[in-house]
Amino acid sequence: MSSSAKPLIRVTVWGEYRHEKKNPKVAKLYPQGMHQTIADALAKLGGGDFAVRTATLDEPEHGLSDAVLDSTDVLTWWGHMAHGDVSDAVVAKVRRRVLEGMGLIVLHSGHYSKIFKALMGDTCSLTWREATDKERLWVTCPSHPIARGLPPYIELPAEEMYGEPFGIPTPDELIFISWFTGGEVFRSGATWRRGNGNIFYFRPGHETYPTYHNPLVQQVIANGVRWAHSGLRIKDQAPNMKPLEPLPPDPEAAERPTEGHK
Amino acid sequence: MSSSAKPLIRVTVWGEYRHEKKNPKVAKLYPQGMHQTIADALAKLGGGDFAVRTATLDEPEHGLSDAVLDSTDVLTWWGHMAHGDVSDAVVAKVRRRVLEGMGLIVLHSGHYSKIFKALMGDTCSLTWREATDKERLWVTCPSHPIARGLPPYIELPAEEMYGEPFGIPTPDELIFISWFTGGEVFRSGATWRRGNGNIFYFRPGHETYPTYHNPLVQQVIANGVRWAHSGLRIKDQAPNMKPLEPLPPDPEAAERPTEGHK
Amino acid sequence: MSSSAKPLIRVTVWGEYRHEKKNPKVAKLYPQGMHQTIADALAKLGGGDFAVRTATLDEPEHGLSDAVLDSTDVLTWWGHMAHGDVSDAVVAKVRRRVLEGMGLIVLHSGHYSKIFKALMGDTCSLTWREATDKERLWVTCPSHPIARGLPPYIELPAEEMYGEPFGIPTPDELIFISWFTGGEVFRSGATWRRGNGNIFYFRPGHETYPTYHNPLVQQVIANGVRWAHSGLRIKDQAPNMKPLEPLPPDPEAAERPTEGHK
Amino acid sequence: MSSSAKPLIRVTVWGEYRHEKKNPKVAKLYPQGMHQTIADALAKLGGGDFAVRTATLDEPEHGLSDAVLDSTDVLTWWGHMAHGDVSDAVVAKVRRRVLEGMGLIVLHSGHYSKIFKALMGDTCSLTWREATDKERLWVTCPSHPIARGLPPYIELPAEEMYGEPFGIPTPDELIFISWFTGGEVFRSGATWRRGNGNIFYFRPGHETYPTYHNPLVQQVIANGVRWAHSGLRIKDQAPNMKPLEPLPPDPEAAERPTEGHK
Repeated sequence: MSSSAKPLIRVTVWGEYRHEKKNPKVAKLYPQGMHQTIADALAKLGGGDFAVRTATLDEPEHGLSDAVLDSTDVLTWWGHMAHGDVSDAVVAKVRRRVLEGMGLIVLHSGHYSKIFKALMGDTCSLTWREATDKERLWVTCPSHPIARGLPPYIELPAEEMYGEPFGIPTPDELIFISWFTGGEVFRSGATWRRGNGNIFYFRPGHETYPTYHNPLVQQVIANGVRWAHSGLRIKDQAPNMKPLEPLPPDPEAAERPTEGHK
Repeated sequence: MSSSAKPLIRVTVWGEYRHEKKNPKVAKLYPQGMHQTIADALAKLGGGDFAVRTATLDEPEHGLSDAVLDSTDVLTWWGHMAHGDVSDAVVAKVRRRVLEGMGLIVLHSGHYSKIFKALMGDTCSLTWREATDKERLWVTCPSHPIARGLPPYIELPAEEMYGEPFGIPTPDELIFISWFTGGEVFRSGATWRRGNGNIFYFRPGHETYPTYHNPLVQQVIANGVRWAHSGLRIKDQAPNMKPLEPLPPDPEAAERPTEGHK
Repeated sequence: MSSSAKPLIRVTVWGEYRHEKKNPKVAKLYPQGMHQTIADALAKLGGGDFAVRTATLDEPEHGLSDAVLDSTDVLTWWGHMAHGDVSDAVVAKVRRRVLEGMGLIVLHSGHYSKIFKALMGDTCSLTWREATDKERLWVTCPSHPIARGLPPYIELPAEEMYGEPFGIPTPDELIFISWFTGGEVFRSGATWRRGNGNIFYFRPGHETYPTYHNPLVQQVIANGVRWAHSGLRIKDQAPNMKPLEPLPPDPEAAERPTEGHK
Repeated sequence: MSSSAKPLIRVTVWGEYRHEKKNPKVAKLYPQGMHQTIADALAKLGGGDFAVRTATLDEPEHGLSDAVLDSTDVLTWWGHMAHGDVSDAVVAKVRRRVLEGMGLIVLHSGHYSKIFKALMGDTCSLTWREATDKERLWVTCPSHPIARGLPPYIELPAEEMYGEPFGIPTPDELIFISWFTGGEVFRSGATWRRGNGNIFYFRPGHETYPTYHNPLVQQVIANGVRWAHSGLRIKDQAPNMKPLEPLPPDPEAAERPTEGHK
């Protein structure tokens, strides 16, 4: 565990990549897609620790073949208008991979993605408005690795509003709370564990704003990747266990099940 | 909110009710089914506060019609050998009802039920053994309403062993930890919130042991029902919000969406 | 545990009661003191379930004699300018009583009281401003008993601002987040357990505003009293335990300590 | 934030160092004191990332001068028979340093140290027994950095028993639960944040057993040091804030306080 052995973190940045092709305003902000802007930022901020690639909805298997998932340590996810086009089979594979230990960073409208809803088990609902709100994300947990290097708040001059109540399980850790001009608040950065996987949700990033060009937003995502990386790959099982300590004799041993657990 | 206005808690005790019909040992312990033993205990311990009925897998709609769910405040769930026979449509309805505010008490092997897995978003896995283990459930949160009236621990002379790691999200509150003769431990009583629904998982209750006849086990389930009852019924929605405070003028207002949120 | 046996909740409302005597503006808002306004509201909202009395700083033992604490189920605490005048001996007694099971509701500037700091073990710091901010408290956990009967938010036309980061341990449950006109947010309602005692912190209530006359603020405090009530009184001890299961022989038994635990 | 910039973690291992001088059995197990055994293990496991020194109770200022604390990133603490001999002034300095961002690892009987009790705000009580118990620490959160590289459980052939209820605040994360031969369980590894400081409590380590020579126990402490390291040093303050957004005019501005916050 010396520093020389520090492992490379293999990051896959997933993007829906539809708005960018349909809406000229979005295309102008993100000519190669939001995913490419995020991937470029991570490659730069990783300082040699990150190996970054991208995948998008309209590639075969949404760019998430077994080979890609097998070699991904942390996946970031942005989706919005086409959540329903993501195949259930791919969602099931991503979910299994998260439970084995792959980190997952869910961005903005990804709160309603199939994968986030499946892992949260909750409504993931919220209130919303597209207008001229300013967003200010306050750091509520300054000592968390995801807040490393940040000022007391991040200000975004224009963003979509998301408001409480946010239908999420109690976060393990709450790192950001947002203020909006129109009078609302939102739990904008939060973490959970599922199986062996670490999950971070980060709110900002509506497609019509230059949010992913913001250096502090980029820093948070990079911090999130470092935090979410566990390096684990542990398959789910429910093993029948032999006792570790002596038990009294078992007159019914012959009838006992020893295999599967329903 | 005076005590005279205290609402009746309408409880539905759901049982898979298959082991009892197939295994004479189980039938002898629970001639009318485990669900009936639990329902009788709740009716008695409710002291007039509970209105209790039962529902089972092999009834139409598994006994969980819209009318039943609409008039259920807290649902208890025991299933094991036939999790796969529970219809996805009924699971979806139960899940929606929990998110609206119905309480849910998941018992023993229900950890692998479709409904618990859907609400947890986790593997819900564990290690297990059917042998001659003694179980001792230690109260770790004596001030919790679910521990009301209990001694420091509940001892069950024979039970199936469940061991860590238990693949659950971090509980909001951890109320029991079990000790087993064979050398294992388990988080045996824990709570979570999902949407407006309160969820309590309680470990003991393997079908071949008289666990549900134990007065302390019955007391825990009754306490759980009181705790899980919210009286709420709030439909999930993600409303478009008008600002509560003045915003700067919005030159793009005409292009903004005002309806559904993906 | 039938509804007829529902216990009376004995509430003591503690007030510093200095601002009211020094500042005419405060005296006009609260002629008998903030504590009396709160006590009157609780007596009314308790609907016969609450027995309410008051205690203030300048009474002997600050009004918190052993006899009073022994017969208090839930204590509410408002202090500000005179935290330093509260005797350490009284704080120690209150703390011990909370750990035994007395509920504690800490209001507004009580975040810096000796008792809250002792129970949190944290800085309890925050940012602040007295100006013309509006406060809007959003309910983030609508199914919590403390949010019972509330609309989506409580709006207070003028209040002191408290801002993040708030130096508190991760709350067990986060119930309110505040929005302020000036651009800040704050975790305004949160719960913790310490020993057998339930603790609720609720932010609003600066002395120069009529906050404690607000019916929704009163409802939250009444809900908090019901939630915090455990009825427990368990003295702290660290007992030497005899084994519950057989141990191997102990050749050193004679040398083993059997009494106190450091 | 490249790997080349990885900071050295300066660790101070604090030991009470009294048992080792009084009890020949302890002296034989730990000839240079438990603190030295722990320090040697950390130096080895740090792989060049840790700079380790020790400090003990009977040194001036208990070895914890301002200069030492100013240059400590993570402090480990073992005390037992002489908690009362630790000066309140030193405890206050250590507490302030933790709140600023120093990590703290509290070992075994340190659960009753002044510093742990001050930071938890709870009773920190438990049940206990010195006998011939075996302890088995089960990993309940395999993906946590503190569990990195561990098998499913750590078995210690002989240890003092600590049992539930353990009087601690709800942990942010629960990493180990112990099983004891005599029939008890215990939350043996848990984390909390206080101010900017990360705190990890780890149960095993009674002085009459060779626990700190166990390689897995050593690995957990080393993992704990890495996890607890934040690199932060942020002084506690409660600043008066100017508004970030325009407020309505304030007719009473002249009377408003602008300095200290009580």
